[in-house]
Amino acid sequence: MNQADILFTNALVITMDDAFRQYFPGAVAVQGDHIVAVGSESDLRQAWEGKETIDCQGRIVMPGLINAHTHVPMTLLRGLADDLRLDVWLMGYMMPVEREFVSPDFVKLGTQLACAEMIRSGTTCFADMYYFEESVAEGAAEAGLRAICGSSVLKFPSPDAKFYEEALAYTRTFIQKWKGHPLIIPSVAPHAPYTTTPEILKACMEMAVEFDVPLQIHLAETAQEVEAIRNETGMPVIPYMKKHHLFNAKVIAAHCVHIDEGEIRALHNVGAGVAHNPSSNLKLASGSAPVRKMNDLHVKVGIGTDGPASNNDLDMFEEMRLASFVAKLQTGDPTAVPARTAVLMATRGSAAACHIGDITGSLTVGKRADLILVDSNPVHNMPYFLRDKNAAYARLVYATKSTDVTDTMVNGKWLMRNRQVLTLDEKALVSRSMEYARRIDAFLTTREKSVLSKLVAIGGAMEEESFEVQMKVRIADVAPVLAALKKPEIAVEYMKHYRQFDTYFLFAGSSQGRLRYREDELIGEKDEIVSARARLTLIGQDPLYPMQEQVLLSRSRYLAPAGNSLRFYREYFKPSSEVEVQKDRQRYLVRFRDTDFYINIDQVTKPELGSFLEVKSRTWSKADAEQKSKLVHELLKFLGGAETDIVTKDYLEIVLGL
Amino acid sequence: MNQADILFTNALVITMDDAFRQYFPGAVAVQGDHIVAVGSESDLRQAWEGKETIDCQGRIVMPGLINAHTHVPMTLLRGLADDLRLDVWLMGYMMPVEREFVSPDFVKLGTQLACAEMIRSGTTCFADMYYFEESVAEGAAEAGLRAICGSSVLKFPSPDAKFYEEALAYTRTFIQKWKGHPLIIPSVAPHAPYTTTPEILKACMEMAVEFDVPLQIHLAETAQEVEAIRNETGMPVIPYMKKHHLFNAKVIAAHCVHIDEGEIRALHNVGAGVAHNPSSNLKLASGSAPVRKMNDLHVKVGIGTDGPASNNDLDMFEEMRLASFVAKLQTGDPTAVPARTAVLMATRGSAAACHIGDITGSLTVGKRADLILVDSNPVHNMPYFLRDKNAAYARLVYATKSTDVTDTMVNGKWLMRNRQVLTLDEKALVSRSMEYARRIDAFLTTREKSVLSKLVAIGGAMEEESFEVQMKVRIADVAPVLAALKKPEIAVEYMKHYRQFDTYFLFAGSSQGRLRYREDELIGEKDEIVSARARLTLIGQDPLYPMQEQVLLSRSRYLAPAGNSLRFYREYFKPSSEVEVQKDRQRYLVRFRDTDFYINIDQVTKPELGSFLEVKSRTWSKADAEQKSKLVHELLKFLGGAETDIVTKDYLEIVLGL
Repeated sequence: MNQADILFTNALVITMDDAFRQYFPGAVAVQGDHIVAVGSESDLRQAWEGKETIDCQGRIVMPGLINAHTHVPMTLLRGLADDLRLDVWLMGYMMPVEREFVSPDFVKLGTQLACAEMIRSGTTCFADMYYFEESVAEGAAEAGLRAICGSSVLKFPSPDAKFYEEALAYTRTFIQKWKGHPLIIPSVAPHAPYTTTPEILKACMEMAVEFDVPLQIHLAETAQEVEAIRNETGMPVIPYMKKHHLFNAKVIAAHCVHIDEGEIRALHNVGAGVAHNPSSNLKLASGSAPVRKMNDLHVKVGIGTDGPASNNDLDMFEEMRLASFVAKLQTGDPTAVPARTAVLMATRGSAAACHIGDITGSLTVGKRADLILVDSNPVHNMPYFLRDKNAAYARLVYATKSTDVTDTMVNGKWLMRNRQVLTLDEKALVSRSMEYARRIDAFLTTREKSVLSKLVAIGGAMEEESFEVQMKVRIADVAPVLAALKKPEIAVEYMKHYRQFDTYFLFAGSSQGRLRYREDELIGEKDEIVSARARLTLIGQDPLYPMQEQVLLSRSRYLAPAGNSLRFYREYFKPSSEVEVQKDRQRYLVRFRDTDFYINIDQVTKPELGSFLEVKSRTWSKADAEQKSKLVHELLKFLGGAETDIVTKDYLEIVLGL
Repeated sequence: MNQADILFTNALVITMDDAFRQYFPGAVAVQGDHIVAVGSESDLRQAWEGKETIDCQGRIVMPGLINAHTHVPMTLLRGLADDLRLDVWLMGYMMPVEREFVSPDFVKLGTQLACAEMIRSGTTCFADMYYFEESVAEGAAEAGLRAICGSSVLKFPSPDAKFYEEALAYTRTFIQKWKGHPLIIPSVAPHAPYTTTPEILKACMEMAVEFDVPLQIHLAETAQEVEAIRNETGMPVIPYMKKHHLFNAKVIAAHCVHIDEGEIRALHNVGAGVAHNPSSNLKLASGSAPVRKMNDLHVKVGIGTDGPASNNDLDMFEEMRLASFVAKLQTGDPTAVPARTAVLMATRGSAAACHIGDITGSLTVGKRADLILVDSNPVHNMPYFLRDKNAAYARLVYATKSTDVTDTMVNGKWLMRNRQVLTLDEKALVSRSMEYARRIDAFLTTREKSVLSKLVAIGGAMEEESFEVQMKVRIADVAPVLAALKKPEIAVEYMKHYRQFDTYFLFAGSSQGRLRYREDELIGEKDEIVSARARLTLIGQDPLYPMQEQVLLSRSRYLAPAGNSLRFYREYFKPSSEVEVQKDRQRYLVRFRDTDFYINIDQVTKPELGSFLEVKSRTWSKADAEQKSKLVHELLKFLGGAETDIVTKDYLEIVLGL
């Protein structure tokens, strides 16, 4: 007789192996962290003896569910704001709250609360991307769950990194620390095409290849994103990623809602995994991913919940059901994504999509013992039929509730027995999470009265969170500047002539920032108005990162198109005072020393402040910003500006005498 | 102090009243079967004293959910067959099994098992249409649930009525018995436009008006149905119903998936209720109903689960979530059907849609005490935010599970306390339901080998379950018949000339029936072939209802287009023998004594059997059939047929010498 630590008997064993074998009554033998035998009870009883024998009383034993895409710390933001437009939700609530509250403590607490929920609902592994991912890894490892963890890399400042270089350095250290851990698979996580740059994508891909770890990224989640990438690059999202060699890494692509058949074939050819997130795509009205097509073309598709702020839970049973339902609606065909396929996607499919199919995802000899027991006979799932083996999958997908999971084991270790979670103090987690909720409530209640929240409420607002290297000098005469622009060392790419009519709304309380209502007139060669537009811009009181050498590194701004009249906005925002500034602006895009710069030659006419020369360049990286700040000085000198005439105030500040 | 039977305290009271009032900590006072006070705990404690005071420990107290459309006895068919084409599912599984098993015992058991599930998941009232509805009413009343019950009226034979007149008589008796019951609201339930006739709709409407009870019907569930009605009547479904004055009754219209804005306005104008069934519409790939539009135009929309055979459960929390999700996907707008609207639809909305808004659907003084307690603090729904009152609805819709319901009360009576169902013996119900499941498994396993199931598996099969009054005589000469057809007493509406090549497949075992492969050639005036088609028809061995006076009343047939060759079908069905019959047929549609008849003048050429005259008319009602069978005799005589030459066998039987 062979010896095993645990012999599960009297179970409906749903293996989800390559042949979709089922055994009833079936048995599973576990030794240490892995499965040593799976089969009919009579076969296993003859060959195996368990130190412990567990009578499953007819329950289902199946592989644990694998959540292929989530942001578990956002459990602490569950139900914070729902049923809102994406921009209002993201910029009005998620981002301001994250900026204020996200810390290693927040992340670890959120992770552990999420782990309790996942253990209860039969999830044994999850793929996560958030901030301070070190704390996600710690939280998951302590709870005993398997996890693929990646700290987000963005071109914007994030709660754990001002610059993307810091995020990459964090990721490198993180990978070096966790690689080889029995539960944690570190990864690299560039956030999305539209929140990164080609340089970031390249650095992430190279790091993932260097350490042979997965790369997580959001791809083609919304139609707007796809359109923006197409406008910017002239190609759809997947080809754009291919162009930058992203798929040299083992990619886990979240969403892939808006991709065409060519892109699906490309994903298959490069061996990328896809995480389908039906609840989130429904709740945010992103659309429905072409799941049947992806399955037909043999893409590795798994299922995820996305973060609990857009779901609002981590219930993989619900996601299986929705994966099937949405595919049927999308195709008009009730046979699309049948129950067996949905269970496959949530187990072996998710494992393959996460590039860990060799160690988990099915009850197969040699794989880790990641398994769950499911009560198959609750009133809401009775009676049942045995004629067709597909009925067992249909029961799991169409009538099982996640609360029917009674026991959860990961890596051969029990995390829940008879609905008692063994590795976490749920009461303490709940109580601490409520402390955060009370603080967030208070923060938002105060902010509800803010100018920002009113701007966001108008709709159409966009955050522009940019780094700008910028320098301004007072000039007596524009002629020397115009002459310099004709020299061969500089190339003018285009010039535009504007008249700008700004009205600044000022508010009591410095934290509110200032709101600028700008009418922009584009002036043609015959001094005629070619076009005009109006925009609202909320400018924070202080730049986020002021830099040395009188070169500014700004700033988070919120922009919104101004469809209504100045009178309307005056009544709506109720400023405590107003200031008008009018100017004539010649705006040049130039190339100088292989670098793009914007040059503004401004004549401020109301009030009459005189002429100014401004030089600006956008940047996403710290190294690049330092390089550009040197070039700004050079360019200013080249254009005839004097360092002694540098102005560090904006026009409003000059007017106000600040 | 006022006296109440029960005073609920320390609750989050979500009233769903007209002002969407919430109280936290709130209280509710119940006296007898109704609510006598709702408000803040401090207010109620000052004014009310309860014989029993229940500390809800912060749980949610809210109105019970109302399932506006279901077929609860089908709980016994849960998971029987899933992920199939609608025709295969309905004709291959549901209808044959229902025909074999549905009885008062089946219906009552299925109802009580469903009641256990509904009580557990917070449903306090349901609107049901099935067969033997008497047993549904008994089952619901014994379990203590409120229910609107209607026995289906169809033009086809059903498990409880051979003719629609029987179904109407059953309904009349049923209404007379139950009207005025404290829990049961009897109703009239014509099945759907495509399964009834204008006469049935009229009779049902009149009965519903006579007794002032609701009328339940399926309307515009699938695109195919809408197309069929349009082809038949020249109008969409809702106008067709208006034309027949259906909305004189208090209609509960299930589904309404495929209706346009004009029809939505019509539903509002006539005060009809609509039951939206998101799970069922998704699972059967029927489409997504225009719920936001219906809400915008103030239609009374509720939510239902449909039967557990197409859902596969009775979980109204899931339906609320899906109602919101599907509307967001459909409109591309994440603000569509926000959580509060979803909860409204499942409570007060469903009550209004079922025309019982005066007695239930919200926690309002004077309404019946139909309420549930929900654990608001499980790990999967933590933390929570208090800043915005909408967050309470979002928690119910996006993260609450039906298993979070802890207590259920209907009409002031407890049906569940602390998750213990008080009115039903769940163990016994489950055990008896498994006996049915074993018998159904055995029935289908035997049938799997049948010709019918193979026919259904081909796809495209349709059941034609018709009553036909039919008579055939042998004739020596066709000339007298043709002469008679020119007389003024008869009007020929059209004539078609066919050549028909039939191959009958015969099988060992009489229960299999016979399968006919027919090639039909339509012959033009110059004896040319205008068109040709091939069809398979499975004909039961015996007519279902043979009638007196040598007039046949048939029969259930299954038809399928035959896209493949005769050779293919021979190999596929493996008949034990074959018989060929060829004939020339002149088919007339005539009007005689204000009644439509088909006349076939057949010359059977292979084998040479001679000439025959057939007179047929389709009927849906017993009275009509009796009237028509007299007319058939008259018409036959008029055409020169002799009663002495009557043939009661079909051509195959003649060939086989049966």
